[in-house]
Amino acid sequence: MSLDPVSIAERLINCPSVTPATGPVFDCLAGMLEPLGFEVHRFIAGEAPDGPVENLLAIRTGPEGSRHFAFAGHLDVVPPGEGWSSGPFEAERRGELLYGRGAVDMKGSIAAMVAAVADIPADAGTISFIITGDEEGPARFGTLPLIDLIRELGVEPDLCLVGEPTSVNRLGDMVKIGRRGSVNMWITCKGAQGHVAYPHLADNPIPRLIALLAELDGLKLDDGTEWFQPSNLEVTDLEVGNRATNVIPAEAQARISIRFNDLHSGASLVAMVEDIARRHKGEVRAVISGESFITLPGSFSTIIADAVRAETGLDPELSTSGGTSDARFLRAVCPVVEFGLCNATMHKKDEAVAIEDLRTLQRIYKRIAISALA
Amino acid sequence: MSLDPVSIAERLINCPSVTPATGPVFDCLAGMLEPLGFEVHRFIAGEAPDGPVENLLAIRTGPEGSRHFAFAGHLDVVPPGEGWSSGPFEAERRGELLYGRGAVDMKGSIAAMVAAVADIPADAGTISFIITGDEEGPARFGTLPLIDLIRELGVEPDLCLVGEPTSVNRLGDMVKIGRRGSVNMWITCKGAQGHVAYPHLADNPIPRLIALLAELDGLKLDDGTEWFQPSNLEVTDLEVGNRATNVIPAEAQARISIRFNDLHSGASLVAMVEDIARRHKGEVRAVISGESFITLPGSFSTIIADAVRAETGLDPELSTSGGTSDARFLRAVCPVVEFGLCNATMHKKDEAVAIEDLRTLQRIYKRIAISALA
Repeated sequence: MSLDPVSIAERLINCPSVTPATGPVFDCLAGMLEPLGFEVHRFIAGEAPDGPVENLLAIRTGPEGSRHFAFAGHLDVVPPGEGWSSGPFEAERRGELLYGRGAVDMKGSIAAMVAAVADIPADAGTISFIITGDEEGPARFGTLPLIDLIRELGVEPDLCLVGEPTSVNRLGDMVKIGRRGSVNMWITCKGAQGHVAYPHLADNPIPRLIALLAELDGLKLDDGTEWFQPSNLEVTDLEVGNRATNVIPAEAQARISIRFNDLHSGASLVAMVEDIARRHKGEVRAVISGESFITLPGSFSTIIADAVRAETGLDPELSTSGGTSDARFLRAVCPVVEFGLCNATMHKKDEAVAIEDLRTLQRIYKRIAISALA
Repeated sequence: MSLDPVSIAERLINCPSVTPATGPVFDCLAGMLEPLGFEVHRFIAGEAPDGPVENLLAIRTGPEGSRHFAFAGHLDVVPPGEGWSSGPFEAERRGELLYGRGAVDMKGSIAAMVAAVADIPADAGTISFIITGDEEGPARFGTLPLIDLIRELGVEPDLCLVGEPTSVNRLGDMVKIGRRGSVNMWITCKGAQGHVAYPHLADNPIPRLIALLAELDGLKLDDGTEWFQPSNLEVTDLEVGNRATNVIPAEAQARISIRFNDLHSGASLVAMVEDIARRHKGEVRAVISGESFITLPGSFSTIIADAVRAETGLDPELSTSGGTSDARFLRAVCPVVEFGLCNATMHKKDEAVAIEDLRTLQRIYKRIAISALA
């Protein structure tokens, strides 16, 4: 059976699915996978505000003892925002591009996966789809419970490819073999409110917060490692909320975000910031979004690089740059690499994919799956 | 004619007059001053949100060539807030205290002025009341247009006493012979928004703002002067307003407040902060609330100190501490000194004045006016 990835992408785009996603977009995908011989498991997890989230695990089991290759991704999309040239949830071909929210991140990629699998004989091995409705949101009720289900069913894959849009300028120029870790911290300095004219009767917490942040901003976390950029700390918010010009406030807050490489853990960074904060009488609340991880260059990345080279002529850069993705969860199950469409328009208005890229990606994914199952 | 300052204070407190004030509280005062021989001028200035504000200028003209002494003050009060033991606008005597919003700041003081004047013969000299309905607010439409009216009528006083609550622990322990200046500045650093994972594509303005504020916080403005405390700078607000943990914001703002002595002007401080801000690519917007001023110790402060000593036995400290008051405007017309009730409960719930203090203050004000007119 041969399927057109462009028309699959259109059908997926036409189902609105802003995070957290449930319902029609999953009906659409399930309706395409079942005829291809997949057994589809669907379930809903979580409650408002971070849920409900729909998740889908589809498996086509190969011959006894065959290897198991998984495609992973998400059907939820970020909100469309304003100013689109056409309806964000009405896929539209204009010239060589297909427009719509999710075109590259990542309904287009999922369409290429489905079309690729339609071309792979069932006896090539076990193939699965691990698809969530919440990758763009807090991701509490998405890939994590999917992994629970995979373990419960005892269907852990041998290798997993996440279809995030990793290409930068041309399809195939970048593969992600790992990701930096991510931690956000809320730092609070408390003092005592008072009148600006009588500062000796108050305790202004802002100078302490400023000194604390100046110290954090002066830190050099590391110089990077073989496969990672240097870790980076950004102060992302300041908040006092004092409307009165003649009042010294009682509390001042800042938020920082650290993206870190394999020289650190979330916990080691939290401890470091807590040490510095303590000296300035600050308190720290931390949320670790993910630890850094890497699937070291080897047979899996070679499979992907070979497939990319065969279809595009490009030698993909193996990178660990950029934000986080669900690969941070899946890497606990098996080696994970990420490869997908060009990310130039992701999260923006008029998100669009080159129609030709969808067809090329279908062929790349087919090569990868066949090699991975061999 | 003899008047009781306690019952006058009660009548004024019973007229709600949160800033900006108009109407009944002015009717009440005018109704007491007219029988004492005062010619009362009332007018309304300004519009919402800072107005309308009512203002009152009352003059009892003495014999040809007599000196002119002015009492100045305000009938507006700060909002009562929550948690009062009795109604904030229902004056209540409990034991030795009279409770109500404005009891010390400064309806009680105005009551003592009125009662004092009732005891002063009309041929002692010219006496006036310069009373605004907006001292506690922005003060744009209060004492400033009153001064315009005074100049238009050609009735500039020779000396002016502002009845703000200057006493600290006991009535008479402190007289204010000047005030520090006050300037607020809003400092903005602009950058370029971006994703935390790609800081090289963004320009985070927060580190620049932090460095700027650290530099301001490290400044020593001066060591104080003969009659003034050291000038003081406080950072009073920080504002970024970035809800997204993975976003580097485009703009960061801080607000500072400087209370300064006679070694500086508002303009010199703005220029200094602008210089520092420029080096950190920050922009400054400034509002100068008032310049510092002083009525150097001399005959006027001696008159007040003598009157205080005669009635209380205390030798008042001559101070320039604390916040701003309408004296910052009136000092352009004539020498100004401030003296009034104890300020412990001003702006707080259960604001209260010692009933005995109202009577003592009446006698002190009478002595001051008579000496000033002599």
